[in-house]
This record gives sequence, structure tokens and C-alpha cells, in this order.
Amino acid sequence: MNASIDFDRRLYREDIRGSIAYAKALEKRGILDRNECRAVVDGLLVIEREITTGAFDFRVEDEDIHMSIERRLFEKIGAAAHKLHTGRSRNEQVVLDERMHLIEACESIYEKMLFLSKALVDRAKEHLSTIIPIYTHLRKAQPVSLGHLFLAYCHALERDRERMKDFQKRLRVLPLGSGAAAGSSIGIDRNQLLKELPFETLSRNSIDAVSTRDFIMEFEFICVLIGITLSRMAEDIIIYSSEEFGFLDLPDDLTTTSSLLPQKKNPDSLELIRGKSARVIGSLVWILTLMKGTPYTYNRDFQEDKECLFDTIDTAMKCSAVMTEVVNGLRVNGERVEEALGRSGGTLFATDIADYLVDKGVPFREAHRTVGELVRFAGERGIDLKDLTIEQYRKFNGAFEKDVHGLFDYIGSVNRHDVVGGTALKRVAEEIKRMENKLEKEIQAKNAR
Amino acid sequence: MNASIDFDRRLYREDIRGSIAYAKALEKRGILDRNECRAVVDGLLVIEREITTGAFDFRVEDEDIHMSIERRLFEKIGAAAHKLHTGRSRNEQVVLDERMHLIEACESIYEKMLFLSKALVDRAKEHLSTIIPIYTHLRKAQPVSLGHLFLAYCHALERDRERMKDFQKRLRVLPLGSGAAAGSSIGIDRNQLLKELPFETLSRNSIDAVSTRDFIMEFEFICVLIGITLSRMAEDIIIYSSEEFGFLDLPDDLTTTSSLLPQKKNPDSLELIRGKSARVIGSLVWILTLMKGTPYTYNRDFQEDKECLFDTIDTAMKCSAVMTEVVNGLRVNGERVEEALGRSGGTLFATDIADYLVDKGVPFREAHRTVGELVRFAGERGIDLKDLTIEQYRKFNGAFEKDVHGLFDYIGSVNRHDVVGGTALKRVAEEIKRMENKLEKEIQAKNAR
Amino acid sequence: MNASIDFDRRLYREDIRGSIAYAKALEKRGILDRNECRAVVDGLLVIEREITTGAFDFRVEDEDIHMSIERRLFEKIGAAAHKLHTGRSRNEQVVLDERMHLIEACESIYEKMLFLSKALVDRAKEHLSTIIPIYTHLRKAQPVSLGHLFLAYCHALERDRERMKDFQKRLRVLPLGSGAAAGSSIGIDRNQLLKELPFETLSRNSIDAVSTRDFIMEFEFICVLIGITLSRMAEDIIIYSSEEFGFLDLPDDLTTTSSLLPQKKNPDSLELIRGKSARVIGSLVWILTLMKGTPYTYNRDFQEDKECLFDTIDTAMKCSAVMTEVVNGLRVNGERVEEALGRSGGTLFATDIADYLVDKGVPFREAHRTVGELVRFAGERGIDLKDLTIEQYRKFNGAFEKDVHGLFDYIGSVNRHDVVGGTALKRVAEEIKRMENKLEKEIQAKNAR
Amino acid sequence: MNASIDFDRRLYREDIRGSIAYAKALEKRGILDRNECRAVVDGLLVIEREITTGAFDFRVEDEDIHMSIERRLFEKIGAAAHKLHTGRSRNEQVVLDERMHLIEACESIYEKMLFLSKALVDRAKEHLSTIIPIYTHLRKAQPVSLGHLFLAYCHALERDRERMKDFQKRLRVLPLGSGAAAGSSIGIDRNQLLKELPFETLSRNSIDAVSTRDFIMEFEFICVLIGITLSRMAEDIIIYSSEEFGFLDLPDDLTTTSSLLPQKKNPDSLELIRGKSARVIGSLVWILTLMKGTPYTYNRDFQEDKECLFDTIDTAMKCSAVMTEVVNGLRVNGERVEEALGRSGGTLFATDIADYLVDKGVPFREAHRTVGELVRFAGERGIDLKDLTIEQYRKFNGAFEKDVHGLFDYIGSVNRHDVVGGTALKRVAEEIKRMENKLEKEIQAKNAR
Repeated sequence: MNASIDFDRRLYREDIRGSIAYAKALEKRGILDRNECRAVVDGLLVIEREITTGAFDFRVEDEDIHMSIERRLFEKIGAAAHKLHTGRSRNEQVVLDERMHLIEACESIYEKMLFLSKALVDRAKEHLSTIIPIYTHLRKAQPVSLGHLFLAYCHALERDRERMKDFQKRLRVLPLGSGAAAGSSIGIDRNQLLKELPFETLSRNSIDAVSTRDFIMEFEFICVLIGITLSRMAEDIIIYSSEEFGFLDLPDDLTTTSSLLPQKKNPDSLELIRGKSARVIGSLVWILTLMKGTPYTYNRDFQEDKECLFDTIDTAMKCSAVMTEVVNGLRVNGERVEEALGRSGGTLFATDIADYLVDKGVPFREAHRTVGELVRFAGERGIDLKDLTIEQYRKFNGAFEKDVHGLFDYIGSVNRHDVVGGTALKRVAEEIKRMENKLEKEIQAKNAR
Repeated sequence: MNASIDFDRRLYREDIRGSIAYAKALEKRGILDRNECRAVVDGLLVIEREITTGAFDFRVEDEDIHMSIERRLFEKIGAAAHKLHTGRSRNEQVVLDERMHLIEACESIYEKMLFLSKALVDRAKEHLSTIIPIYTHLRKAQPVSLGHLFLAYCHALERDRERMKDFQKRLRVLPLGSGAAAGSSIGIDRNQLLKELPFETLSRNSIDAVSTRDFIMEFEFICVLIGITLSRMAEDIIIYSSEEFGFLDLPDDLTTTSSLLPQKKNPDSLELIRGKSARVIGSLVWILTLMKGTPYTYNRDFQEDKECLFDTIDTAMKCSAVMTEVVNGLRVNGERVEEALGRSGGTLFATDIADYLVDKGVPFREAHRTVGELVRFAGERGIDLKDLTIEQYRKFNGAFEKDVHGLFDYIGSVNRHDVVGGTALKRVAEEIKRMENKLEKEIQAKNAR
Repeated sequence: MNASIDFDRRLYREDIRGSIAYAKALEKRGILDRNECRAVVDGLLVIEREITTGAFDFRVEDEDIHMSIERRLFEKIGAAAHKLHTGRSRNEQVVLDERMHLIEACESIYEKMLFLSKALVDRAKEHLSTIIPIYTHLRKAQPVSLGHLFLAYCHALERDRERMKDFQKRLRVLPLGSGAAAGSSIGIDRNQLLKELPFETLSRNSIDAVSTRDFIMEFEFICVLIGITLSRMAEDIIIYSSEEFGFLDLPDDLTTTSSLLPQKKNPDSLELIRGKSARVIGSLVWILTLMKGTPYTYNRDFQEDKECLFDTIDTAMKCSAVMTEVVNGLRVNGERVEEALGRSGGTLFATDIADYLVDKGVPFREAHRTVGELVRFAGERGIDLKDLTIEQYRKFNGAFEKDVHGLFDYIGSVNRHDVVGGTALKRVAEEIKRMENKLEKEIQAKNAR
Repeated sequence: MNASIDFDRRLYREDIRGSIAYAKALEKRGILDRNECRAVVDGLLVIEREITTGAFDFRVEDEDIHMSIERRLFEKIGAAAHKLHTGRSRNEQVVLDERMHLIEACESIYEKMLFLSKALVDRAKEHLSTIIPIYTHLRKAQPVSLGHLFLAYCHALERDRERMKDFQKRLRVLPLGSGAAAGSSIGIDRNQLLKELPFETLSRNSIDAVSTRDFIMEFEFICVLIGITLSRMAEDIIIYSSEEFGFLDLPDDLTTTSSLLPQKKNPDSLELIRGKSARVIGSLVWILTLMKGTPYTYNRDFQEDKECLFDTIDTAMKCSAVMTEVVNGLRVNGERVEEALGRSGGTLFATDIADYLVDKGVPFREAHRTVGELVRFAGERGIDLKDLTIEQYRKFNGAFEKDVHGLFDYIGSVNRHDVVGGTALKRVAEEIKRMENKLEKEIQAKNAR
């Protein structure tokens, strides 16, 4: 049970990069001489290649990735291999590796999320003036721009990315030099290590450095929120692409059919995204419960921090990528959307009519009551609100004038929601622009690196 | 089941402040005239007093706090009360109230955490040169400054506070003006609202504004991490104050005794802190699971977001405050600490001896082996390492010289861990200074407000 | 923070009943004389009335319900009140109270679930021959009896009830007599206590008796599964009652409308049921995480076991009751169901056609391919499968004969699923009978008590 | 993302056994002829061997284990392979396989737990009369038999096993014959299937059969409780084996030392057991959250039910086995235990003295006060309670007589807790006997199979 080599081997690159930096610092400190240092570095690079190419012979008795590499290095270069561990503890080494692994994972996930956001903005642009009914309580509420809905997802993802960014300053803290718990006893030059490795600051308390796993917990949480964003999007798209709603068609390669029922397109990819968000929540609970139960400083319980972490990294990557494909591949079924709008018998304009009355000076509450009565009246007779005559309108409230029939226009209704963040088309267009610029800048910056 | 008035009444201040701002915006927009606006504002202020003083008559049939206040306002000022709801939706109102409530809660929790950190720094200062054994795997590992341990907790709390700060930019986003989901249809001036209310930016997508609860989830998570920090501290202190460890004595008013066993001081406060962190984890899972299961936009499931939120606020406040009392009231039992150091028969100096040998040119791995043999040798004979003669030392390795006996000094050992973040007393002193300055600046800034 | 009187007062009846039984055992043991015992019992009964009627004066300084009652009893009867605590510990008293409270709560929840199951069976009976499309992946799959779906929920609830029953043998274990941890030191007659109190067996290890809270964890879990059953039912009904599906209409008093949109019936009750299942999951995690972190025996962390427990009891009660109302009040919209069946253009008969071919000797895989081609062919031409001519059928496979048109009958299709547990009407009818008998027996047994 | 073959291949045996039974039922039903059936059965058995020996070629494009085996069977025997799927759905096949896998896993875990319980009873027997202080709040409370503590763990494990047993009646329900959701359409003989496969009853509702995963959730929960039992035991043993407590020594092969610090025996195995219980809690939350979010019937989210299940099976197996080794290998350090008892200065007899006074007719509350004063008096003077003179005793209460000094005997004290479940040695011995008999019967029954 003690061996972790089956899963922590995934950290081999980080372990090797960390050891190379440490070897150089040992050389500066006079513990390795020039030749020894070179032998260590070269040996480690060879081992990295061996592992990458699958030539490395992992053994259970090595227990973990640190020992595996140490053992192999000794086979290759002899005694100098052991000097590499002078003044260094497993306790600090494992968090070094984990932090480095996470730094890279965050970059990748962040990028995947940029692409997903970009896909959404593109579709928002395309469907700026496609009007759909928006739902509250899974009941049609008001007409909005479909672009506005796509942007709504973008905003959630924007905050998800922002959390990932904020997290970096806590993640990119170099623990190396913390020893087992009391700090390096050989006066290693931590600033040199900092220069060699992809960190921004030094940890400033050795006990804390080996005791905390809050960087894993925070990462897990950020991915949980990504998972929830994606799960709710998936839920929407599953419902909207059902035969009964029919607003969206899913791309064939993201659905599953049977040879028997070729017309039944099951939204498997989206269901998996929805399901996988539960998995990430499970991993978060795992690490939280794990850490809650431990005293300071290092405890072997912490070995259990890795599998949930790796699993979450992979899940976040996969789900973001698949959702991007879904968004890119969605087809909007305009006919069905219009049908749905039409089927609501004009009740989607209820707030417009009420606002109209308020504008004519009718007190708010009375306006509401009037509209309620109108809706009921029309509903019972199976007449569409827009087909009631002006005389019928007036029976309910004398404030109605002929222009009431001008209200029954979806674009007009949408455009009356004309505030920052509202669904008026020009507001949505502005927001698309803003979001697009921001994303492009970020994508360019990524590519520049 | 639908009524939420039993718990959401806690939001009355926020609801009233929000409504006052909205009334002013309605006046500007021409929907309320000057007198109506004044009547609304004055009425609301009276209602606020009524609720604060307990004179308000809550009724289940009002269902929620928004309705309660609306109903009462109508009783007081008549029709103008209803106009207040022109163009405003419950969907946006509830998140407005929640966000405002959280803004204040964050301030209070943050302050409590500052005080706790300050208490720790004070104790760290006092115990800079108290040497204790630090534990890994609940086994004595190395001597460190007790101040260094206190600072370790401070560092964890510093990150907890930092997360709270980062969170503000996502929290202080004004949702008012989002309507039911499509945005205000009456062209309310959102920038005016922003000026009146304690927010920093406007939400920029109305669907997102009423659909998301990520601000609650993030808050819950931040408090979970605070809970875990406090739980682990509590665990440490419970163990250290056990009769068997005996390093710490708890203040009488934070322990419980029985009339029968006056000497048995149960660490109830700490156990409750430890237990309450489980409660906060439960609340986080509650809100995560809740949100994961919902499509966009608003769903009534969201009513269930409040009790876990309020409970977490109260728990975070209480636990931080109690832990501060614990830290302030702890007595360090120097005698027992020294006894514990002494009992380890010098093995706490094992790394010092190994480092000594490495410095004398002995290869690292050989040095380690030598020390291992020495420890075993001394252990079997029941001799303290420091009491072995130089001849005995030399039997194990010729590199030992007389100065080896100079190693057996705790302060000396501690001071050899002389790197940034190490336990060398001057390093700890520096870090205390840095932390103290930072905290004082923050506390002053708080007080200035 | 230490006081629990705000929530544990809920246990007053159990505390008093337990104390009465203990007083009698003390009398038998000779520690209370006859008069003292009578005074204690009478005093406790008066206190019970005081609390029930709201006349009792709870004080924070009493800390918990045990102390409150003890203090009041002393005020009433003097010294004998204190004797009541001879040889009894708070550690055993609290689990006694909790177990007794749970025994009653289980009875009530069980009963509520019986009623819900009964409601489902009644509706199943009524809709035995209403044919609906059943969904997999939220896509129409096959025609089934609506009664069959209602029974599916019943089966899940049956297992939920069964778990509750199995749990009783672990719950109804009397801890009284366990002392603080070592067992009663005054030789109290535990068998007498067992006779006086609603338990079935004696706990057989005093350390275990005060250390475990597995009875709370198991109860929480059982309620979580009930919550998930109800949440999934709620999800189904929310979707089926959407305008787009339209199969079900919700009773007015379980939906919410606005004065503005009287036609928009929001399924608030169901959304709350769905949401509240998250709450119960949160409570389960709370107690699991709490217990995981503690050593044997009693720790004050355990004080935190009560609020989650009480909350879960109330939630399970409420949700079961509301769901029963929903089930009783649902109206099935036969027209919309038929429309939905019709809209699928005969593809719901795809498996029937394939089975037909297999019966004519066509190999399974070929039959499947043929049907796939037929569905595609018909779909592209917008023809219903049942409207294809026999010549068209034969073009795809020579095995088709005229009787193929006899397949297109929903009842016929349903009846071909003629196995135990299948949707053939006679199978469903049998199962309704079986379930009905079982429920009636249980309900009668309940009423008999 | 859709492929599950990487993990569901673990179900190959179950899938093959299920298919063999199904082939035989198809033969009886006349869909396979005798030769075809034999070919299918033989082919499947060959495939089973191929997989077991590692000769099987898994391909990602097969997606899952069902498809992999189907594909291979077709390669081997041609067309008859396809007939095997007549009237069978993936939806029922996957739950069949999962249930069968779980039936076997439960057997194995149950057995491991029997062995652990047996180990505990053996140690209890051995240490029946070893007296240790038992802790509440991690503070010494009373003397008890160490055997009594070992039995306490046994009782928790007994309930854990009992839950596993209760679960079987819900687990061993055969879903085969449920089709995609509506039940088999080819009239397969489900009772024949039941005879061929390790189940006890038939599922009685096809929709329920493919929709529910409560058997996975219940299994996860049972393992969570096992995990919590083991975690709390681990916590106890970690603390008791610390140098400061020193009651227990861990076997060398279950601890980790470093070459540097051979005396520092880290309890890694126990820390991992403690940590792994968090992992199982995570898996439970995973599956709960997953299921809560889905409507009836089958959804692809369910693919995510397997990895958490497999992980929990493996974890429960490993942790039980390791804990058994720990229990078997523990050494009790009698000297340190006695020292701990002695160090408490007689205060462990406080309840004995109070009981003594009560027996002499002193009212309970006065007795308590007296003892409290005595303890304080002795504590302040550093005198052991047993060393106070009779005159000193009498100063506090005239009821003391010379026999008070007879109280200070640990065995005597323990034996005064003489009730069912108490720590009196004869009570513990009885309970050991009872538990031993029960376990031996169960183990014999296992072995007989």
C-alpha cells in the first residue's frame, strides 16, 4: 500500500527539473564539484528520455518516483548520485514536483477555456439576432437574443479563468529549501533555485511549506466550478436539443446512435460532461476531508493527494475540449425556435404590455393586474394576445391605444431591455466586441510565448 | 415548504438599502415623483427600525423578506409602495441582497482573521527562542523555534485572507438592473445604482447575473479552507496540551472540567472548532451539488442557497474569534518542552551530526549510514548521543573530532537552518517583523474606515 | 460556542423519558427511595409540560438540555434531583436521547413514504393503459405504460423503506448503562431500563456505545437516498410538465405564478424538492467528515452531530409529504402524450419491426440494419413508418409480409414486453396488485399500533 | 471521452458469465440452435482465457468491454455472435455486470473484515487484564481493560459487516430481461437466467432496473463507514504509539524509518489508512452527486459510476488487510501503560471515591464536591490521592473510613463497572467468548463454501 510509483511517476519531468536546479545549487554551495554536477545533470536528462520513451524500468520496490530516479541515477553515475540528496528532504521534493506539475496543468486548462470562450463568442456573434425564449424554472419567460445566452456562459467562464489567474500567486511559490520541516541546514541558495525554476516567490516558512496542500485544494475547487459551469451548459443543451424543444441539433460525431434507431441522437458527450462534474466534486471532497484530519506538519496521509489531483487535471482538460467541439458544432434550428416563440400565444410579451401601460401612466400594480386578466381571457379563448382587437384591450383598461399592436415584435421587445448587460441587440453586440477583444489579446499573448 | 421568511429575514437591511437606491433611480427615471420617492424611503427606514427593534410582525403568508417589506410598506404609504417594484424582479433582488450581505460578512470575517493572525505573531515574538521538537507523522523530527510554528499558522491564514481579497472583485458586482433574466426593460440608470450601493462594477450579462451562484460557492470554499486551517491548528493544540505531550496549557475558560475531575481540562473549544470545520465542508457540498443540478437561468432550487451561507458566515466568525482567545490564552510549559527534547536522547541532533560529517568531507550517504549506526548503538545502550565519548564516535567514523560535542545545543541546531523561511532565530525574527508590519498596516487601514 | 441548548432542546421529551426510566432503576438499586423516585418522576412530567406549552425558561448558561432539565428539577424538588445523576454520564445520556429521537423520526418518515408509495400505486392503477414514450438520454426510446413508470418510482421507494427497516436493529440498541466510557459503576439494572424504553437490545460494549455515531451516519445516508429518489422524480415531472413536453399538468397549489404571467406555472415545489436533496447530501458529508477526524471515545466535536440530524429529519418529512401531494394532484394530458407518440413517425416501433423480422427468421444483425435503413428512408421523405406500403417494405427486405402493418399499435407493442418486470399491461397490473397488497398490509399494521 | 474500455474491462468475467447464461436462454427460446449456442459458449470461454492471460487485444475503438467481447466473438464464430444480442440491451447488460462484480467484491471484503475482527478478538483475549487509561477528549478518563477497547472496535466492525449483509438482498436482484427500459420483447425466460446466475430474485420493474444505481451508492456508503471505523482506529493507534503516549509499538514492517533516523518509526501504514478513508468519502460524494442530477431512465452520465466503484473495492480490501497486519503485529508496552496510569496521581480513581461515598450514604452531589476538593488538595501538594492519610480524607468528609485505601487498585476499579457491556473483566471475557464464537461460525461457514 505504501508504494505510490504507479501514479506519481507522472511527476518525472518535474522531479528531474527540480533535481537539476538543486544540483546546480549544490555545486555553487561547494557540495558537488563541477564534474559531479555535470554528471548528475546529464544523467538526469538521460533518465528523462528513458522515461519519456518508455525505456525506463519502473520497479515497485522503488516505492515512488523520487526513489526510482535516484536509484537509476546511481546505476548510471555512482556516488555523486547520492550527494544530490544532501540537505534535501522528500517532504519538500514532493510539493515542489506537485506545484510544478500544476503550473503547467493550469496553463493548459486555461488555454482550453480560452478556446471554449472564443467558440461561444463566435456563435454569439453569429446568433446575435436569433431570438429565443429564455427559461426560468424551465418555463418560457421572455424573448432574448441567443447571442446573449451564449455570452452568459462566457461570463461564467471568465470568472472561472480569473480564479485560475488569482491562484497563480499562491501556486508559484517555491518550497525547495524547506528541508524536512525546519528549513535547509546547508544554506542552499534559494534565490538561485528560484531563478532556475518556474516560480515567482520563495516560501517564507519551512513548516508551512511542507504542511500545506491548500494549493491542491484551491485548484480542485477552481476545477469544480469549471465543472459546474460546463455541467449547467450541458444540461441546457441536452434539453434544448431534445425533440420536444428542438432548438439545437448536435453534431453527429458528438452524439451516439444505434444501428436500430439512426434517428435517435443521444447526447452522450454532454451527459458525460455533466457526469464528470460530479467526479470532480468527489475529488474536492476527498482532498478536503483528507487534509482536515491531519495535524501539522507532514503526514503520510498526504500521499493520497495525487490521484485526485491528476484525475481532475485530465477531466478538466477533456471536458473543456469536448464542450468546445459541441459549441462549434451546434446547429440552431431556427424554425423550431420560431415555432416555440409562436406557440406561447403572445404571452412572452406580457411584460412589454405591462411596461406599455406603466408608460401610459397606469400604476404598476394595476398594469400587472390588467395584463394578467388579458392573458387569462385570451388563453381561455385560444386567441393569441396580438390578435385581440383594440376594443377587447380597452375593455380591460382604457389606457390601451392602437399602438399596442406594435408591441408584438420580438426584436422590438428584446431591444426594450436596453441597459448595460441587457439583451437589447446593440448591448449584446457591444459586449461581444468587448469579450472578443479581451479573448484575442489573451490568445495572442499565449501564442507569443 | 415554499416560504423562506424564517431565514431570509436576515437580509432585511440589505433589502431595504437596495430598495432605497432603486427608489431614487425610479425617481430619476420619472416613475416615482419626488414625494413618492421620499415616502418610500422614509417608510423603508421606519420598517428597518421596526425589524431591528423586533417590533415587526413577520407572517408566513408573506413568504419571503421581499414580500414582507413590500406588504408593510403598502400598509404605511399605500400605492407608491407598489410602484417601487416597477421593472424589478425577485430574481435580481435576491442576488443583490445576498451579495450585499456577503460583502459585509467578508469584512467581518477578514477582521477576525487579522486579529487571530496578530495574536499568533505576538505569541511568536514571545516564543521566538523557545525551542520545541517539531513533528512529522506525529513523531519528533527536529528542533525548531516555537515562534516558527506559530508563524506557520500565520502563513496559512495569510493565504486564506488573500483568497478573500481576490474574491471581492467577483463579489462586488452589482446585479440590479438585470430584470427577470433579460435586463431592465425600463432603462433604469445602473450607474446611479452603482454609486448608491457598495459595489465596484456592473454585471454585464443579465442572464448570467440571475443564474450564477458562484459567489456563494467561492465564499463557502474560502471558509472551508479557513476551517481546515483552524481545524489543523486545533488538532495540534489538542495534542500538545494533552497530559502526555504537555507542551501547552489551555486557558481555563476555554476548557471544560467536571465537578468530579477538576484536573481534567477538556479542550472543548478546540474540539468544537475541529468539528465545525466539517460543518462548513458540508455546506460547501450542499451548494455545489445544488447548483450542479440546475439548468440556466433562475430555478427555485436556489432558495436553498441561503441557510448554508448564513451558517457558514456565523461559523467562520465564531471559530476565528474563539481560536484567537485560545492563542492569546495558551501557556507554554517550558519544563515539559525541555523534558521532551531531553527525552529524545539526542536523536533530534541526528541531521546535525550528518551535516557535520558532510562538512568534514564524508559523502552524504556514508554520513547518513554512520549516524544511523550511532543512533542504534546509543539507543541499545540507553546512552544519550551527547554522552558518547569521542573515542566511541571515532569507532564509527574517523572524521569525528572533539568539536562534535559542540553540536548538542538546541539553539545552535536551530540556527543552522539559516535560509529564507528556515527556523534560524534571526530568520524567524525577520519574518515576524515582516508579518507584524503587514498586519499592523491592515489593521490601521481597517480602523481608519 | 459551547452551548447547544438552542438546538438540543428539541430532545427534551426523550431526555425526560430516559430520566424517568433511570429514576426507576435507581429506586430498584436503592439509590432513590420510593418518595424520591416519585418526586423525580412527577417533577420531570411537570417540566415536560412546561416545555411543551412554552412556559419553560431556557437559559444559555444551562448550556444544554440535560442541564436545563436538571437545574429546573432541582428548583422543584431539591436534593433528590441531583441523585438522579448518580452513576450516569452525559456521554451516554446524549446518545440515548438521539437514538430515541431517531426511532420516532424513522416511524414518521416511514409512514410518509408509505403514503407516497400508495399515491403512486393509485395513479399507476388509473394510468395502467395510458401509453407514453419512455426516455433514455432524454430522447424518446420506447412506448410504455405510464403505470409502469409510476411503479418504477415505487420500487426505488420500496428499497428506501427497506433500508430504513434494516437500520432499526442497529438503531434500537440501548446505550444507557455505559457510563462515561467504562460502563455503569453502580450496577444499574440495564434489562429493567430496556423494558422501560423503546429499544430492542442492550449495547454490549460501553466504549463503543459512547464513541460511535454510525447510527446517525446511516440515517443520514438513508435520507440521502430518499432525497435522490425524490429529486430524480422531481426532475422527471419538471420536464414532463414543461410546455414543450406537456405530458403532465401540475396542481395549481403546488406551482407559483405571478400576477403578470398567470399562465406560467412554475414548478416551485418540485424544484425545492430537487434542491433539498442537495442539502441532505451536505448533511451527510458534514457528519462523515466530522466523525472521520476523531479518535475514540467521546470528543466534543460530537456536539456538532445534532443540527444536521434534525435538519435531515425535517427535510425528509417535508419532501415526502409535498411529493405525495404532487403525485395525487398531477393531471395527465392525454392529448399531448398522444401527440408526442404520433410525432415520432413510427420510430418508436423500430424494435417491434426488428423483432418481427427476427421472428421471420432474419438474423438479428440484418434485421437491425434493415430497420435502420427503413427509418432513414421514411425520415428523409417525411413519411410515417406505418404509412409505407408493403412494396416499399419489401424493397428493404423480402421477409416483410402484409401483417407488418399490424405492428403499429402502441398497446400491442407494449404487450410484447411480456416478462416479469416488463411493461406488458398484464404484467404491470400484476405488479400493481402485489405492491398494493403489500402497502395496504403495512398501512394497516401502522394504524393498528 | 466516450470510451470506457480502459476501466470497464475489469468486468470481463461477469460480462462473459452473463452472456453464457443469456445464450442458453436464447437456445431455449429457439433463437439460437444447439450448435450455435455451443459455439457461443465455447467462444466466450476462450475469450475469457485470452483476457485472463493477457493475450486479448483491447482496442479503443471497441469503446467498452461489451463491444470488445462481441467483436472478438464474431471474429471467432461469425454470425451466431450477433444473435447473442437478440433482445438484449446495453442498459441491462452493464448493471448485470456491475451487480455480479459487486457480489464477489462484497464476499471478499466481508472475509477480510472477519479476519480483522478475529485478530482484534485474539488481541482482546491476550490483553483482557491489561489495564489502560481510556480517553475522552484525548484526556485520561478511567481505567479500562485493553481487551475492552479492542472489542469496541470489533463492535463497530460487526455493524459494518451487518450492513453488508443487509445489502445483499438489494444487490442480488437480477436485472437481465429488462431490455432497454421496457422489458424483454422476446419473452426470454428470466427464471432460467436466475438459476444460471448468482442472484436471488428477479427485478420487478424494467424501468427501475436500468435507472437505479442505488446498489452502488449503498455499497459506497458501507465502505465509507468501514473507512471511518478504520480511520478512527488508525488515529488511536497513531497516538498511542507516539513516543509521548508510548502504549503501543508498531511492527517494523508497517512503519517507515530513514537511514538517518532509525529510531523514528513513522506509522505510514496507519496514516495511509486514515487518508484513504477520505478517498472513499470522495467516491461516495461522486456517485451521489452524479445520480442526483439525472432524470429517469438511463443516461450516459452513468458511465461514470464505475471508476469510483472499483477504486472503493480495492481500497476497502487493502485497508482491511493492512489493519489486520497492524493489529496482529502490535506490541503492548506494559511499562509505559503502567507509568501513564501512575502518572495520573490517583485521579483515575476519582469516580471510585465518589461512588464509595455515595455507598456510604453521602448524597451524590456532595460526594462529587468532596472528591473535587480532594483532587485539588492533592494536586496542589503533588501528593498522590492514595497517599493521603485517612485523617486527611476525613477532613474533607467524615464518611471516609480506612477501607478507602482499598480503592486504589486498577483491577478493582475496572471490576466495579459490572454491567452488560461494562469493563469488568468477567463481562469483557464473556463478550470475547460471544464474539469469538460468532466469528468462528462465520469463518467456518465461509471455508465450507
